[in-house]
Amino acid sequence: MGANASTLREVARIAGVSPSTVSRFLTPDRRHLVNADTATRVEEAIRVAGYSPNSLARGLKTRRSLTVGVVIPDLRNPVFPSMVRGIEDRLERDGYTALIVSTDNDAARERRSFERLRARQVDGVICATATREHEVVSRAIAEDVPLALLNRTIAEGGVNAVVPDDRLGVRLAVDHLVELGHTAIAHVGGPAQTTSGQRRRAGFRAAMRRRGLQVPKALITEAEAFTEAAGHRAARELLDSGECLTAIVAANDLVALGCCDALRERGLRCPNHVSVTGFNDMPFSDRFNPPLTTLRLPHHELGVLAAELVLASVAADASTVEPREVLVKPTLVVRRSTAPPG
Amino acid sequence: MGANASTLREVARIAGVSPSTVSRFLTPDRRHLVNADTATRVEEAIRVAGYSPNSLARGLKTRRSLTVGVVIPDLRNPVFPSMVRGIEDRLERDGYTALIVSTDNDAARERRSFERLRARQVDGVICATATREHEVVSRAIAEDVPLALLNRTIAEGGVNAVVPDDRLGVRLAVDHLVELGHTAIAHVGGPAQTTSGQRRRAGFRAAMRRRGLQVPKALITEAEAFTEAAGHRAARELLDSGECLTAIVAANDLVALGCCDALRERGLRCPNHVSVTGFNDMPFSDRFNPPLTTLRLPHHELGVLAAELVLASVAADASTVEPREVLVKPTLVVRRSTAPPG
Repeated sequence: MGANASTLREVARIAGVSPSTVSRFLTPDRRHLVNADTATRVEEAIRVAGYSPNSLARGLKTRRSLTVGVVIPDLRNPVFPSMVRGIEDRLERDGYTALIVSTDNDAARERRSFERLRARQVDGVICATATREHEVVSRAIAEDVPLALLNRTIAEGGVNAVVPDDRLGVRLAVDHLVELGHTAIAHVGGPAQTTSGQRRRAGFRAAMRRRGLQVPKALITEAEAFTEAAGHRAARELLDSGECLTAIVAANDLVALGCCDALRERGLRCPNHVSVTGFNDMPFSDRFNPPLTTLRLPHHELGVLAAELVLASVAADASTVEPREVLVKPTLVVRRSTAPPG
Repeated sequence: MGANASTLREVARIAGVSPSTVSRFLTPDRRHLVNADTATRVEEAIRVAGYSPNSLARGLKTRRSLTVGVVIPDLRNPVFPSMVRGIEDRLERDGYTALIVSTDNDAARERRSFERLRARQVDGVICATATREHEVVSRAIAEDVPLALLNRTIAEGGVNAVVPDDRLGVRLAVDHLVELGHTAIAHVGGPAQTTSGQRRRAGFRAAMRRRGLQVPKALITEAEAFTEAAGHRAARELLDSGECLTAIVAANDLVALGCCDALRERGLRCPNHVSVTGFNDMPFSDRFNPPLTTLRLPHHELGVLAAELVLASVAADASTVEPREVLVKPTLVVRRSTAPPG
């Protein structure tokens, strides 16, 4: 994604190879990865396009903007500022600056932001907006943009990603509730088109099965976003179902706050009538009324890890680094939003 | 701050005028603002520098990156994500994207971020990090960067800024506490090098005087940052002074949370022993234990206003728009962190 990305693409098109092959050909200590036939074709294409291999190689080394784009779905979720801080702290050690855009979960806004970042020649991108099928991410991968996904990944994998161990987290929550004596446990899940929503839901079903507990269909609802308002709506739906429940495993902390709002509105108290768990241990979770039982993740560290993946890709040229999915384990933090069934 | 800013500066240097004069000369409907002698000098300088007035004028119109840099001191203060959302919503209407950098109140990081934004050719900058004397802001003004300050401004003014009416806000808090029966009221202020810290402190003194109340010196302390940790430290100092107090007016909501922590640590309860007020009505203020009495500001609207100021400067060329300071009035929100003295 350096200033000469279009030049590389032009040469690649003429040679009928990928831009990363051209980049490999131009990098002395990786040229041996390009087979002799391909090398000849690339050499010829560079000549046809009117460049010299040396000038192209120089561009490759020096045309760094020392910026990394960071694409965030919603800065108002307090986990993201913490992750961003981790990204910034790590980037800064290598002299890089983060340019942050937030998309409000809006695909058109995201596409535009992404294009602007590329036009501003960022050296790589950290993306926390991934959905399971994600056009912008797929395009970035196809175009060899140094990339790391954060917090969520795409369904097919094959990309740098730093994500929580969603299934483990939800299992810890279910086990905690079961040990308190709950059996009628509901799940207010996150959007199914995100890996975090989908994996937490699958994790919930698996954890309940492991404990030998049935989950009536009505006790699994889906919040359409990871927000208080969406959690509130989904929890209302749950309570309207008339199904008996004494605990809710919410998809994240904001959704959990929305669940508490829905309970309060029906005259139910947390945890006296219904226990609620969150996910993230976002800033302020310990200050709410009641303080939230939740799964703790090291958000700063998640940001640091994502920055490291993208810096490694920038340094080495995206296509030559094997993509890694780093799974970060959450730990259970018990506070006062959970108690034995009343 | 377009791609040809350095060209404009070069011409301006040769002509011995400011870059904005050159820009005015190049803009047909503003050329009449340049007097005849100056116009001749600019024309000559353009020739000497080897440009044509037409190509320069074209650059002026078209070299837009459609990005605005947004410099934030600390994204972990939940007021900033709300302001950023306002900025983004307004910029988007004009096809602009915000590139956000956060500085962690670190001057070196800020200088570097600012330079990176300029190198990425942002069309303007919204800056929420201003201190009363602020090197980066002064430089941006000197270089005619389209600029709007947000939340705080510089001591000397003369720059676009959208700021709360700090003095009014603190007066509303003091009046509320006095009406509840408090007389021994302390202030945990913000950093004196910020206009918000300085104006809120001055506003506190003025409001107490207006009510005929003395403030012993020990009852005014300064948090070294607008954070929970700094508020905690400053409130400890206050409590250590041994001076009698029944209420604290905190510089903002995070500082207020830090004050509550210090009270709890000494076995004091809020509001039973000491009432506490915040400033901002940041997201989640209503969910804390106790919910916070505070001054409400329309953060989204503050962001929108700042975006409008910077867009107007970009459209018109920074130097030809008279800078405006927009003062936004806070309103008091009474919750359960304040009560009559126990």
